[in-house]
Amino acid sequence: MAGNTIGEVFRVTTWGESHGPAVGAVIDGCPPGIELSPEDIQKELERRRPGRIRTASARQEMDLVEILSGVFEGKTTGTPISLLLRNTDVRSGDYEAIKDLFRPGHGDYTYFKKYGFRDYRGGGRASSRETAARVAAGAVAAKVIGKAGIEVVAYTRAVGGIEIKKTWQECLGLSREELMKNPLLCPEAETAALIEEKLLQTKDQGDSLGGIVEIIVRGCPAGLGEPVFDKIDADLAKALMGIGSIKGVEIGAGFAVAHMLGSENNDPLGPEGFLTNHAGGILAGITNGEPIVIRVATKPIPSIGKGQRTVTKDGEAREIVIGGRHDVCTIPRIVPVCEAMVNIILADHYLRQKAIEQWT
Amino acid sequence: MAGNTIGEVFRVTTWGESHGPAVGAVIDGCPPGIELSPEDIQKELERRRPGRIRTASARQEMDLVEILSGVFEGKTTGTPISLLLRNTDVRSGDYEAIKDLFRPGHGDYTYFKKYGFRDYRGGGRASSRETAARVAAGAVAAKVIGKAGIEVVAYTRAVGGIEIKKTWQECLGLSREELMKNPLLCPEAETAALIEEKLLQTKDQGDSLGGIVEIIVRGCPAGLGEPVFDKIDADLAKALMGIGSIKGVEIGAGFAVAHMLGSENNDPLGPEGFLTNHAGGILAGITNGEPIVIRVATKPIPSIGKGQRTVTKDGEAREIVIGGRHDVCTIPRIVPVCEAMVNIILADHYLRQKAIEQWT
Amino acid sequence: MAGNTIGEVFRVTTWGESHGPAVGAVIDGCPPGIELSPEDIQKELERRRPGRIRTASARQEMDLVEILSGVFEGKTTGTPISLLLRNTDVRSGDYEAIKDLFRPGHGDYTYFKKYGFRDYRGGGRASSRETAARVAAGAVAAKVIGKAGIEVVAYTRAVGGIEIKKTWQECLGLSREELMKNPLLCPEAETAALIEEKLLQTKDQGDSLGGIVEIIVRGCPAGLGEPVFDKIDADLAKALMGIGSIKGVEIGAGFAVAHMLGSENNDPLGPEGFLTNHAGGILAGITNGEPIVIRVATKPIPSIGKGQRTVTKDGEAREIVIGGRHDVCTIPRIVPVCEAMVNIILADHYLRQKAIEQWT
Amino acid sequence: MAGNTIGEVFRVTTWGESHGPAVGAVIDGCPPGIELSPEDIQKELERRRPGRIRTASARQEMDLVEILSGVFEGKTTGTPISLLLRNTDVRSGDYEAIKDLFRPGHGDYTYFKKYGFRDYRGGGRASSRETAARVAAGAVAAKVIGKAGIEVVAYTRAVGGIEIKKTWQECLGLSREELMKNPLLCPEAETAALIEEKLLQTKDQGDSLGGIVEIIVRGCPAGLGEPVFDKIDADLAKALMGIGSIKGVEIGAGFAVAHMLGSENNDPLGPEGFLTNHAGGILAGITNGEPIVIRVATKPIPSIGKGQRTVTKDGEAREIVIGGRHDVCTIPRIVPVCEAMVNIILADHYLRQKAIEQWT
Repeated sequence: MAGNTIGEVFRVTTWGESHGPAVGAVIDGCPPGIELSPEDIQKELERRRPGRIRTASARQEMDLVEILSGVFEGKTTGTPISLLLRNTDVRSGDYEAIKDLFRPGHGDYTYFKKYGFRDYRGGGRASSRETAARVAAGAVAAKVIGKAGIEVVAYTRAVGGIEIKKTWQECLGLSREELMKNPLLCPEAETAALIEEKLLQTKDQGDSLGGIVEIIVRGCPAGLGEPVFDKIDADLAKALMGIGSIKGVEIGAGFAVAHMLGSENNDPLGPEGFLTNHAGGILAGITNGEPIVIRVATKPIPSIGKGQRTVTKDGEAREIVIGGRHDVCTIPRIVPVCEAMVNIILADHYLRQKAIEQWT
Repeated sequence: MAGNTIGEVFRVTTWGESHGPAVGAVIDGCPPGIELSPEDIQKELERRRPGRIRTASARQEMDLVEILSGVFEGKTTGTPISLLLRNTDVRSGDYEAIKDLFRPGHGDYTYFKKYGFRDYRGGGRASSRETAARVAAGAVAAKVIGKAGIEVVAYTRAVGGIEIKKTWQECLGLSREELMKNPLLCPEAETAALIEEKLLQTKDQGDSLGGIVEIIVRGCPAGLGEPVFDKIDADLAKALMGIGSIKGVEIGAGFAVAHMLGSENNDPLGPEGFLTNHAGGILAGITNGEPIVIRVATKPIPSIGKGQRTVTKDGEAREIVIGGRHDVCTIPRIVPVCEAMVNIILADHYLRQKAIEQWT
Repeated sequence: MAGNTIGEVFRVTTWGESHGPAVGAVIDGCPPGIELSPEDIQKELERRRPGRIRTASARQEMDLVEILSGVFEGKTTGTPISLLLRNTDVRSGDYEAIKDLFRPGHGDYTYFKKYGFRDYRGGGRASSRETAARVAAGAVAAKVIGKAGIEVVAYTRAVGGIEIKKTWQECLGLSREELMKNPLLCPEAETAALIEEKLLQTKDQGDSLGGIVEIIVRGCPAGLGEPVFDKIDADLAKALMGIGSIKGVEIGAGFAVAHMLGSENNDPLGPEGFLTNHAGGILAGITNGEPIVIRVATKPIPSIGKGQRTVTKDGEAREIVIGGRHDVCTIPRIVPVCEAMVNIILADHYLRQKAIEQWT
Repeated sequence: MAGNTIGEVFRVTTWGESHGPAVGAVIDGCPPGIELSPEDIQKELERRRPGRIRTASARQEMDLVEILSGVFEGKTTGTPISLLLRNTDVRSGDYEAIKDLFRPGHGDYTYFKKYGFRDYRGGGRASSRETAARVAAGAVAAKVIGKAGIEVVAYTRAVGGIEIKKTWQECLGLSREELMKNPLLCPEAETAALIEEKLLQTKDQGDSLGGIVEIIVRGCPAGLGEPVFDKIDADLAKALMGIGSIKGVEIGAGFAVAHMLGSENNDPLGPEGFLTNHAGGILAGITNGEPIVIRVATKPIPSIGKGQRTVTKDGEAREIVIGGRHDVCTIPRIVPVCEAMVNIILADHYLRQKAIEQWT
């Protein structure tokens, strides 16, 4: 009933608070015989490490993962995989000052309302620190679907209104390693430069920016998705909307379908396959073999240096100015989190479909 | 592993194909003691009945619901509620001609790839006929949360690029009964007239239109949602993206957050509560007591009269012209389906939170 | 959270009350392509029909099943299978007299405590009428595992202390059709005769009897079961203990292991396989390829003609004498219910293991 | 689909192998505000520590638990509780000799068949080492239901055929602390002495013994259990049968019901409540407010010093003599594991019922 597990066959449970001793994940349902090393996971964690980016939080977590179970002689055994990430650079003192205040745009108020009290130290479970566990689990998922030739790549489409000109079709061939060369995980150098400038400027103003991440899935076979409620687009939307700060998810042509005609939007078929891909790789909640294309909108980081109106737990008006160590934009650190969630959903649905396929 | 159940506490399973003997739903986990009559359900089914709308399918289903279990002396008993809707106006013959063709934009191809064969009669389980079962189940969910003063209302925001001018704030007071007076469930008479004209025009051209539905939840208390994966926005996104034809979901400011500053997007708090509602009633995946505001984009109906390129099951090229009885736009019939899915998710999360609340 | 669904991959949900309009089941997760006809189900329902047995309830239900979905052209489609059984011979008037009394040994008191009121008409959902839906669903499960050569057969081992002399090894070859020739589903004619005599005698005395059912699974491959919680013996125990009136479950040597030595109880292996089967076909919660052997103890029917002490809903002392139409012993009608539950669990675990096997 | 999670509301996932770096558990769904310290858990782990018992394994695990999340300022927060137990005294070398042999009575053969290979080091996940994680999680469950006055106590009823004379009624008042004074957790001093003698004798003979554990639940309110599949007796049977080595579970009068009359077995009611308790506290799968009484049979430890016939992975015949560090009987170390599993099931069902109760 509590909601810290995702997936039906490839099941991921995360645990841990921002300022507790550690965060981690348990994966149940990973098939046996998959090669898995700590490096496989470390490599993905590196993508979201704050140290890589100039406008990111100054919090320095080494993010060294320990695999505590489920792997024997370098391969998964089919038993639960437990992943542990110690929190090392914790400065809870930073949060004493705002202990009784609700930070606008944060979960402080709602956590308080839900659980009756709050872990004020760095956002507790609502902190982006928790997403390190998702990225670790996502790395395992990527190994599972990687065996079938499925690859997920996400990149920065826009920040603060500055958007790349490339279409998703032009980004389809992007190598994940190549992308890593740009600290913003943005596939267009000149746009990246403009974005970085805007990030620095906004940081100086004590403000923050939102943006758009685009996610592409390559090599995905047709047949994944479980109507009528666990459709693949439904589960992808859930997994992505459940990342802190994401306020919109669209697939294929997305919101643009609202003003298209059926004759424009339908993807006709020829003997060689689909002739267009407005559907973004998904029809009736099932993959059709085309690339899956998703865009998500991420809101500006709510922690800003500017003064804001708020109240105390007792309802008294206050002004709040947030210090601490924060990013200016969730991008680019949210990019590997998006990849992780998509990897987890695809691993889950891939295994679900494999189970059906043998009957067909 | 199959995906025909939604919800953790208030669990809905739907079953049934478009051209089989019936469709239906089983609800497990409805609390005991809720007043429930067939009329409560019938009233909601009426909202999606094709007969109400000029440009809707000519298929005439009476949609008479039978409550087969779980209700005794007019009240729910806490045991499963089984709802049955017979299919009466079935003309499978209409589909013989396209038996071996994949209709563009439909699930024909993907169902075939997934299950190894297809029920070609009217889309089988991918048909919108299945949503009658969702609306029936949603009516029960509405009764549950209605007791707590929560009400869901959805309406037509745009069709074919023609959009209402009213903001969601101006629609906040809409009565669901009032809305029913307009066949398009559109809260702006002059816009509704323009839309209707466009629908008729598009019908004549053998084409179809997409649109935008806006959904508002009134009276929702703070505290609903189960981080980190079953956040309320995550579950709403899943439930809505899982409705056939929906390609985008956004909450509150939605995709607009991508070019907002943190200082613009954050909702400050005063002693009287939140001062703005860009968050759309949800912070960190938990409701904050403000109205929940959601928009979804629905693609144009894929069944169009114009000729389209497609292939047979054996990969041979064909032209397809679709006859049968179809709507021009999923709007307005999709509107009550959106309401139903939101009602189901809210009932589920309401019961989940009630279970926690007694501890806080 | 409510408990009317069983299984993870092959999921069965039952619904319906004894004296409501119908009972039924929805199966989600049945693989596509399995041949399934109403007769397949009818045949199994016939095994639990009261009319077959002299000491059984006089209630005459035709138990005609209707398959409402999930089957097309004689084969399952992979979508939910909805099964409907109308209640036809309902005489709720029989229960008016005991409306406010708690029948000893029945669920009247506990349902009242749980849900706050009770459906007094024939036990509502606690009635054995609900098991008709289980038997129907079990028939579908049997078709699934039948394709893999797995067969479940249960029979009467003992009633009222009168037990068959045959060991399970001697019953291993029993044909289910052969068994049906004896109304008591007892594989030893002379014991069956003694039991029948005792049943008639006990009926005359207005009393009832308990007994033991033995269940054997033939042809089950090694590898089924999901440690550490969903072990196959754990899930079998749950499925069987969850049948009304069952108070004990044992596997293989069962309770006898308590006074055996390790050297006696261990099953040694030779090149030809296991040399004994004290384990009853299950080691560490996983099938080992040997026959699965289970015994369950069923309590005497609580509805007896003798006067018993009880209380009203308001706690006032009364004597109760139960009329109505009742069996003297749950055996033999519980026998096919045991088979059904074992078939459901095996179908579920068979599909779970098939999903893993392709990786090994 | 994999089976390492138990519970619907109070959900426990265990992970970890006998000879890996650690074992642990994640609990999702524990209510907020419960006082919880490492000592609460440590105290329960102490009950299953081998060092306490002369005939137990010589493996010395300190079993120091670390609470990694979900507790803030001494109280649970409603977020997942992660518990970590490092494996410290691991000697995998002990197992090299039997690396390719299937130990009779163990899971070696079935794990190999299921997953395609095996973790031969001490039984991997099938080892009783995994139960340390269950006991840790059970300690948290006990805190939850302890607030409602529910207490679970288990004790040794019989070992190797030597059984206590006391009835469960005479054991009803047993204090758990008092029980700990006897290393065998046996409530009858003279029987305990006989058992200990038999254990030493059997150890000398290189053999092992089975036994019976009795479990009593005191203070359990009426109303717990979720028909028709998640009945409380069904879930208890599952939880207990899923403990390695348990081959039988019975409730209340148990297997004895098979030769009782209805008039003997039924528990009549008087104004003061139930007059007898043959039902063992459960009617129609729901608790009735009487003490819950359960007995389980545990098979002799399969690791014995005597030579046994077995085969290699390639099917060649061998004799096997098992060294290593083993107990002679799973009793008494299995006793706290039984308690833990019952605590977990009761916490889960208690929370499930609390959620319903507010509606009645």
